Amino acid sequence: MIQIRKLDSTAIDFQETLDALLAFEAETDFAIEQAVTGIIAQVRARGDEAVVEYTNKFDRIPNGGAADLKAFEIGQAELDAALAALPDAQRAALQTAAERIRVFHERQKQELQGFTYTEADGTILGQRITALDRVGIYVPGGKAAYPSSVLMNAIPAKVAGVGEIVMVVPTPDGVKNQMVLAAAAIAGVDRVIGIGGAQAVAALAYGTESIQPVDKIVGPGNAYVAAAKRRVFGAVGIDMIAGPSEILVVCDGTTDPDWVAMDLFSQAEHDELAQAILLCPDADYIAQVEASIQKLLPTMPRQDTIRTSLTDRGALVKVRDMDEACEIANAIAAEHLEISAEEPQQWADKIRHAGAMFLGRFSSESLGDYCCGPNHVLPTSRTARFSSPLGVYDFQKRSSVIQVSEAGAQTLGKVAAELAYGEGLQAHARSAELRLKS
Amino acid sequence: MIQIRKLDSTAIDFQETLDALLAFEAETDFAIEQAVTGIIAQVRARGDEAVVEYTNKFDRIPNGGAADLKAFEIGQAELDAALAALPDAQRAALQTAAERIRVFHERQKQELQGFTYTEADGTILGQRITALDRVGIYVPGGKAAYPSSVLMNAIPAKVAGVGEIVMVVPTPDGVKNQMVLAAAAIAGVDRVIGIGGAQAVAALAYGTESIQPVDKIVGPGNAYVAAAKRRVFGAVGIDMIAGPSEILVVCDGTTDPDWVAMDLFSQAEHDELAQAILLCPDADYIAQVEASIQKLLPTMPRQDTIRTSLTDRGALVKVRDMDEACEIANAIAAEHLEISAEEPQQWADKIRHAGAMFLGRFSSESLGDYCCGPNHVLPTSRTARFSSPLGVYDFQKRSSVIQVSEAGAQTLGKVAAELAYGEGLQAHARSAELRLKS
Repeated sequence: MIQIRKLDSTAIDFQETLDALLAFEAETDFAIEQAVTGIIAQVRARGDEAVVEYTNKFDRIPNGGAADLKAFEIGQAELDAALAALPDAQRAALQTAAERIRVFHERQKQELQGFTYTEADGTILGQRITALDRVGIYVPGGKAAYPSSVLMNAIPAKVAGVGEIVMVVPTPDGVKNQMVLAAAAIAGVDRVIGIGGAQAVAALAYGTESIQPVDKIVGPGNAYVAAAKRRVFGAVGIDMIAGPSEILVVCDGTTDPDWVAMDLFSQAEHDELAQAILLCPDADYIAQVEASIQKLLPTMPRQDTIRTSLTDRGALVKVRDMDEACEIANAIAAEHLEISAEEPQQWADKIRHAGAMFLGRFSSESLGDYCCGPNHVLPTSRTARFSSPLGVYDFQKRSSVIQVSEAGAQTLGKVAAELAYGEGLQAHARSAELRLKS
Repeated sequence: MIQIRKLDSTAIDFQETLDALLAFEAETDFAIEQAVTGIIAQVRARGDEAVVEYTNKFDRIPNGGAADLKAFEIGQAELDAALAALPDAQRAALQTAAERIRVFHERQKQELQGFTYTEADGTILGQRITALDRVGIYVPGGKAAYPSSVLMNAIPAKVAGVGEIVMVVPTPDGVKNQMVLAAAAIAGVDRVIGIGGAQAVAALAYGTESIQPVDKIVGPGNAYVAAAKRRVFGAVGIDMIAGPSEILVVCDGTTDPDWVAMDLFSQAEHDELAQAILLCPDADYIAQVEASIQKLLPTMPRQDTIRTSLTDRGALVKVRDMDEACEIANAIAAEHLEISAEEPQQWADKIRHAGAMFLGRFSSESLGDYCCGPNHVLPTSRTARFSSPLGVYDFQKRSSVIQVSEAGAQTLGKVAAELAYGEGLQAHARSAELRLKS
């Protein structure tokens, strides 16, 4: 038996209870901050040597550790061999997923082409889109090593046209995850180095003798990696620091309750802090989902994680109606939002904030996690209010282009000078005025 | 006389010297960090009361300070009055600038429309673009109060369709900057509050009794504001924390040297840490620019700031040819890049990294700062390698849309299950498999 929280939106303390349930603030661990600051300083000062030392120690590299960074290079032949050695079904699945991810992200690229327009006086204004030169992708080692994440991080960079994609992945005890290497081969990663932790982040950000600095670092990692990414931000770009993963299911009560229960499990199995919430206007249906949860939980290999996650952070919420469910969904701004309902579009139209929306009962989140095509790196912890899924646009940037004609300088110069004098910036004003014909 | 650094790209230590010149790392001031942490905690705990206390104290609000937050509201009538009271030429210039900024940013909005496509089996995939609900714009008070910044921050948010734009601007000693208020009226800011500092940032991020929390905070500020923005990041979105402003002029030696000298001044006058650099293949021309600098500097009201900036952080660099100038420009990735040359497009085509490019000798940076239309909030400190000018896209976010058909679930479900089992995530696999017809 599992005790899962049941809430009712008409309860007087509902909002307060929901807010408390949603609250998640990553704590700052000063011991980690301090350790990471030291590691970064060492890598900046001593380069390869420091990276090798830390890697030998933290990843328990066997046989007394590696002598130099070259020993951690994982060459193309090794990636290709890992791909060839996969079971056929697994290789085919990875390839299908990669191709679908590529197709979706090509659409993102098509959308962002930049623009130019010419004004009547010949002045040209525009916006140019260019790809980043070099990107680092962090891939965790050990139990959280997900080949699907390699595809989701590397393919958008590839589609964007990034010049060089460098992947780092730790090899704890010297063990390499073959499926991760196979995914790197499929995604077209340019270089793979078997290092991880804050030392890998520092090496990517600042460069060493054998690693050229990158322009941006993406990908998930443990608390040390997250702290290191935060610290190197500015020197390089980073993606969002992800919080625990979340699913919100809005259901009208017409979906097989086993399906909804399993969808909640699929989020809860990630880790104990993951959050799975159901909103439904039908109390009987909620009871059926609860029964499905009780029935199906013992069949799940990761039932301990699921139980803790659902008990601590999950909820089954009875709402007044589907309209209210949509309002609450906007306040939650979930990473994953399933609208498991007849004619889901009517409800989707009311949603303003969600990382990804899964519409209709056949759109389980798990399909999106692996192979629908859209990215599975999504804004967590209500950040979908202001941020977006990882995409091609994260590996591109814009530059404004301004080409003022001589005629344009006559009109614009007077406006600029007026405002510059108003702000007390006389060199700005004079710079505009010098271009005026007397 | 001013001593300005002259470099030659053929010198053996050129790269090293240039790197040292470009190096800028904002130091972390722990006293400021600590103060800001305390202020944020107080505002979260005590709301309006804490905001009023800090504002009365830090901004030296006269007559014993304000009694409540309402006293700091600056209503629409006051904004309209400020606009009406401006000298005609200044009002017209602000309005022209605002209209041109609006037109350019409308083009950005047009570019990003989202997309949807339907696959053969009826599965629908897409990306939806929505505006942020509520945005906070921080405007500095005192000497760095720039009405142009109000336009550049607020208009993109307005064009994006942000529901509510809340502007905060401190009023040191109770003094309001009328041109800033006029700009707020023109830009269509929804609410203006005369508060600033870390307390204003905290109030916007977490809300108080009388301020609803926003989803993103943009705009420049002093070290306390920057520290507060960094700290609330995650709870809300923020824009980049800007470093000192920079201009890089690439000149082929055909522009009036007075113009180039004044363009360098227009950056250097911002503050002593601002950076102005010239790259040119023609040594004689560089000497002419230097002579112009010597000649024009005494005429500048802000000559002290210009002198310090140019002496400490400026340089006139002799390069081998214009191709090398473009290579160096890519390494510098300047906030503002002027290509002051005949047929500038040939060189612009070689530029990969710049916040904004000003092409041709009539395109002085100052025109772009005020009224060309593109945004003047640009990536500094080499971050143009991976980031973009402030734009409409900063006030929008994307959501993925996934609507899998029953037929689609049959093929995608098998792929997802294969990969999920490979990653040891059995609930993910079962969730996909439940949708398969037996």
